[in-house]
Amino acid sequence: MRPLAIGQRSETVRRANLSAIVRELHANGPRSRSMLVARIGLTRSAIRSLLGELLAADLVREERAALRGTPGRPSPVVRTNPEAMVVLAVEVNVDSLAAAVVGLGGEVVELVRVDRASGSASVDDTIAGVVELSRRLLADRRRRNALVGVGVAVAGVVRRRDGLVSMAPNLGWRDVPFGERLIAGLGLDVPVTIVNEADTGALAEHLRGAAVGHEHVLFVTGEVGVGGGLIVDGRPLTGVAGYGGEIGHIPVNRDGRRCGCGAIGCWETEVGEGALLVRAGRPADGGRDALDAVLDEAAAGSPVALNALEETGHWLGVGLAGLVNLLNPELVVLGGRFGRIHPYVADSIEEELDRHALAAPRALVRIVPARLGADASLLGAAEVAFEALLADPADWMRRSNRVELASA
Amino acid sequence: MRPLAIGQRSETVRRANLSAIVRELHANGPRSRSMLVARIGLTRSAIRSLLGELLAADLVREERAALRGTPGRPSPVVRTNPEAMVVLAVEVNVDSLAAAVVGLGGEVVELVRVDRASGSASVDDTIAGVVELSRRLLADRRRRNALVGVGVAVAGVVRRRDGLVSMAPNLGWRDVPFGERLIAGLGLDVPVTIVNEADTGALAEHLRGAAVGHEHVLFVTGEVGVGGGLIVDGRPLTGVAGYGGEIGHIPVNRDGRRCGCGAIGCWETEVGEGALLVRAGRPADGGRDALDAVLDEAAAGSPVALNALEETGHWLGVGLAGLVNLLNPELVVLGGRFGRIHPYVADSIEEELDRHALAAPRALVRIVPARLGADASLLGAAEVAFEALLADPADWMRRSNRVELASA
Repeated sequence: MRPLAIGQRSETVRRANLSAIVRELHANGPRSRSMLVARIGLTRSAIRSLLGELLAADLVREERAALRGTPGRPSPVVRTNPEAMVVLAVEVNVDSLAAAVVGLGGEVVELVRVDRASGSASVDDTIAGVVELSRRLLADRRRRNALVGVGVAVAGVVRRRDGLVSMAPNLGWRDVPFGERLIAGLGLDVPVTIVNEADTGALAEHLRGAAVGHEHVLFVTGEVGVGGGLIVDGRPLTGVAGYGGEIGHIPVNRDGRRCGCGAIGCWETEVGEGALLVRAGRPADGGRDALDAVLDEAAAGSPVALNALEETGHWLGVGLAGLVNLLNPELVVLGGRFGRIHPYVADSIEEELDRHALAAPRALVRIVPARLGADASLLGAAEVAFEALLADPADWMRRSNRVELASA
Repeated sequence: MRPLAIGQRSETVRRANLSAIVRELHANGPRSRSMLVARIGLTRSAIRSLLGELLAADLVREERAALRGTPGRPSPVVRTNPEAMVVLAVEVNVDSLAAAVVGLGGEVVELVRVDRASGSASVDDTIAGVVELSRRLLADRRRRNALVGVGVAVAGVVRRRDGLVSMAPNLGWRDVPFGERLIAGLGLDVPVTIVNEADTGALAEHLRGAAVGHEHVLFVTGEVGVGGGLIVDGRPLTGVAGYGGEIGHIPVNRDGRRCGCGAIGCWETEVGEGALLVRAGRPADGGRDALDAVLDEAAAGSPVALNALEETGHWLGVGLAGLVNLLNPELVVLGGRFGRIHPYVADSIEEELDRHALAAPRALVRIVPARLGADASLLGAAEVAFEALLADPADWMRRSNRVELASA
């Protein structure tokens, strides 16, 4: 139902096939030629010819290595070359900054996470912090030469086109041209893409975490705020400008509290970290240490802590019920701090789903904790940075002169 | 990010290109060869060869006809042949049944709508009613021979795979194997697909109505109940089993009324027809006549009627704010009875969006009434029935022996 159907020329087809091979190896690891034939659905000779291009460009390597579980003589396997191209992934959160160098194929080459005191999240300090991490991780010249992109996950409402942060209530930002300023600060000669951190978390859990193999996924992450990332038919739902997935700001309680966004009774005001801490008798801004303390108390059987978690679980369930009815997902993945509290809120969530969700979609959905833990959003930022390359490796080979190399 | 990348063989490409041409003509009407070259993005000779196949199979026809606005000698235009293939579209609503024969290209050949008294919506009566309409519309043998599929829109929660109606609270159905029974009743030798009526409404408004050219659309329709259809990146969001879009059952008011689905405070309990009628001092089950009366009173300036509409508009706005935050649509299309009350609720909706939606997605969204009126869901059911053919016309030509015809 696209308004403009696009026909396919043979050059387009070649590029799409190169993309299919690189994506397969990037997402699923080393493959024999036979497995590539089976997975990609092309003839053996077509795969051979395309692999020839990728090998010559040094994007992939072929090695004799036994695949697990295959007896007899090791057959050659193709794998991505993680040194040929790397991305810089960055995560900007309220109480921490993180950065990583990730190679093609998803290998984390180096990862650094630094806590920062609350109140140090100004735009200037954040940019300075990211630039410092970037210099440290890219000090090695070979890495810098292999850099193909930067992906940045931000805990805020982000315009995909230029990385404008329209609002990040928990960082205290509003209408910040973060992309523009960060690009200037980094001074790197590669594309920089800024994305909401829940969207990148969803990508990572879908590609390498709890949601592998599922095509209809809702990722719900709790940090200081609450974010959502949606996978619809196997693809991220971004909305028209990249603002999609702001589930923290669905109105759920018209008699509720005022939210950082200015509205009354947003879901975040009931399920965010602050609400849980207040229910557990602590200051709303107690942060990660206070959350750790509440979880310790709950583990020791404290009724106050357990009740606070249960109430939070009920509100989680009410919001999730609406989202289950709307999206009919097969999987809801609870990430960030929701992943940590999952054991204490799972029952309450299921109860509210029974009560509020329609029987049909309710019966098909499972609620699970995230598998990538605290690094999901950071790892997803790497995927965002790889996306242009994965979508059209031929273009990258041409621009980086690897094609000349190939024909030499 | 699909788990299995699919490579493209030349046969796959030919089929995709045939599909692109037929979709273009079906969606946008007659085109000259040059326009097809420009729109589809293939070479002139590729278009010529593919059109040859379609012409030989009689799926399209070529005529010398002046396109509007082009001076000089008429150049040949290609158009779909609406007699070569038709579909039967059916709409099952609480208070009416409708059916239409629609030709390839979207031409409505014949359309019948019959009201039915409330209480006559039993499964048996419904199937008998649809079968009778079908016999009437397909009495002509040429039509029956050209039939390629049946699409049925139902005001309920429908499993796409087999047309099981899990729940249709306003019809009073629960776990009805409607698809199976209807297929038996119709006795037609073509695929029958059952879909939620709001999903088909969204399809129709996207292809031929208010949402043409928009890729991120939320269609919200009010009949007796409330339904939603989502277009994400130009494609319908169905969810894992086809249940997606049940926006009527998002919890919005925890102190609210009990919904037909069994839960408390669903959006439908605040914005459904019953809630509006009660606010206007009428019985909740007054139906379309009562709604007409309220609209007449509002037009005459009755404060009771105007207040009832305004309050409904506020609740519409609260729910839409959450959906705008979640989906970042460029367009919200109000269909069914919401399309009729649009002039009276538009201001209240905008106010609540200002209050509850995040500034960034809020600034990008427009709320408009549907353009196809009461027939949107029926016309969308026709599109569902055409979908298999549009996705792979080559397969249809082969199975219907039109290829032999072509090579004769």
